[in-house]
Amino acid sequence: MAELDLPSILEFTVALARKAGDLILAGSEAIQNVEASNVNEKKNSVDLVTEYDVRVEELVSKELSTKYPTFKFIGEESYSAGHRPPLTDEPTFCTERPNFVHGFPYVCISLGLIVNKRPVLGVIYNPFLNHLYTGIKGRGSFLTRANGQPLKLPLTASPKPLPSLSQALIAVEWGSDRAEKPISAKSSSFGRLAGDPAHIPGGKMAHSLRSVGSAALNFALVAQGGLDLYWEVGCWPWDVCAGIVIAEEAGGVVTGSHEVFAATKSDPSFGDVTEDILKGRKYIVVRAIGPSEGETAQGAQKRIIEEFYSSVEDIEPN
Amino acid sequence: MAELDLPSILEFTVALARKAGDLILAGSEAIQNVEASNVNEKKNSVDLVTEYDVRVEELVSKELSTKYPTFKFIGEESYSAGHRPPLTDEPTFCTERPNFVHGFPYVCISLGLIVNKRPVLGVIYNPFLNHLYTGIKGRGSFLTRANGQPLKLPLTASPKPLPSLSQALIAVEWGSDRAEKPISAKSSSFGRLAGDPAHIPGGKMAHSLRSVGSAALNFALVAQGGLDLYWEVGCWPWDVCAGIVIAEEAGGVVTGSHEVFAATKSDPSFGDVTEDILKGRKYIVVRAIGPSEGETAQGAQKRIIEEFYSSVEDIEPN
Repeated sequence: MAELDLPSILEFTVALARKAGDLILAGSEAIQNVEASNVNEKKNSVDLVTEYDVRVEELVSKELSTKYPTFKFIGEESYSAGHRPPLTDEPTFCTERPNFVHGFPYVCISLGLIVNKRPVLGVIYNPFLNHLYTGIKGRGSFLTRANGQPLKLPLTASPKPLPSLSQALIAVEWGSDRAEKPISAKSSSFGRLAGDPAHIPGGKMAHSLRSVGSAALNFALVAQGGLDLYWEVGCWPWDVCAGIVIAEEAGGVVTGSHEVFAATKSDPSFGDVTEDILKGRKYIVVRAIGPSEGETAQGAQKRIIEEFYSSVEDIEPN
Repeated sequence: MAELDLPSILEFTVALARKAGDLILAGSEAIQNVEASNVNEKKNSVDLVTEYDVRVEELVSKELSTKYPTFKFIGEESYSAGHRPPLTDEPTFCTERPNFVHGFPYVCISLGLIVNKRPVLGVIYNPFLNHLYTGIKGRGSFLTRANGQPLKLPLTASPKPLPSLSQALIAVEWGSDRAEKPISAKSSSFGRLAGDPAHIPGGKMAHSLRSVGSAALNFALVAQGGLDLYWEVGCWPWDVCAGIVIAEEAGGVVTGSHEVFAATKSDPSFGDVTEDILKGRKYIVVRAIGPSEGETAQGAQKRIIEEFYSSVEDIEPN
């Protein structure tokens, strides 16, 4: 296969994300107006949600497949029948369905490209805030706000230190699996992250916890340096592919579960997001950290992951 | 006392909030750059945080007291020595210290005005997103994004229905009190809100939970209709005063603790944010709801608060 022209793919993907963003904005307005005018009649609003869901999905897959007819796709649809095809070495687009029903402004469209089983390109666009994040493997990642110039990520000139979790702003999400096990494990894990160690065994007294509700935007916020760490269980490759590229290109490190971290932390290849990690549904991403004396930049990130995984439970996604 | 010209006070307060916002942006950049360049030296960065904290606070109090020399003030400073003076009938500004250290973009300056012990005017400005929320009692509330026109709140033409918490997007915060009691109560309460009732006793399976980290912005998001409900324990009047006006003027209802709700829900004056509620440090705000058949708009809000308070624990702030 000929070398891919990633900058040209990025240009196309960005234009498509903006187009999808316009459709999300139009859908959001239409849905809210129908909901408002149909106080006792939810049917129309549900229909409209489905309609815009499908329209955004169709726009994206149609435009991508017309422009790149040989590329493959993975997304909610391709996995839905319990069928989880292995990745190939072929270029594969990852597309995430936006969840724009509620009018909450932290919502995005996320488009990623996997080549040789590794994420290589990512676009995350939040149409409500007009924030566009882009990244190409080896060429950096950027944030463009409204009509401004692209700003190189992270937004700080050089990485800030992070002595421990007690200084950290951490993103966690409650997710869609609401069974007893994951919810109890999350409740107690989040409580330990927030808790004062003087009163709560294992407490980390993190600076604070945030939940904005979007895996892609959590990765983007870690990339920009607005969050220190994001931990997730239950997402899919298409939720995180674009975010992985953007975070890594901003100096962030991404790895998988407790077990994956323990098994790979001493490997020279640590930080390589393999197919197993990409499809493993357990992710942790830590921003670029200015190392303390005697440690490397990656050593600082491993130190934080070590501390984090010692305080949260390993959860099996359903 | 002569009638106050609230629109003119709003105009001045908005200009001041934007000025303070510019200072927050400058401070945020300066702090991040110092942190980045002083990997092993936190002192300068801590000094700079304090410096900008003080500068924002001084700018706001100096400009307000010059322009309105007879008005009173309440804020972190006036309460700091354990002294919690009662409200008077005099116009009293509430100013909140922003918490802009981390580079997380959900941060704001919040300026509120209390007259006759009731919140009557609010300005909430997020300089990172350039979102300005304003409200005057009896004259509506508005959101101005970037250089756009002010949009009347809520953003929907008429209020959306909310059949139960299972459809609700709920804001909760972990707060700064990290002792065993509040953290355990929050962990289990949040878990019940998220949990599937088929597996977790009392589970409400809320659509989702969000934590953006700012009381004022949570009120603003409820006002705009991007959140359905926000529950808070431990905040102070200056954290919520502006948000209360903005949410109420968007059709939202605000009340206090479990106990306050139980004692006042049948009163004709329900929804009046009294001095007790304003200073009670326990708040719940629900957006305007399109009522179901046979209920009033406020009846729908009470139904949601009833359901919510039946599933979360009453917590004593420290």
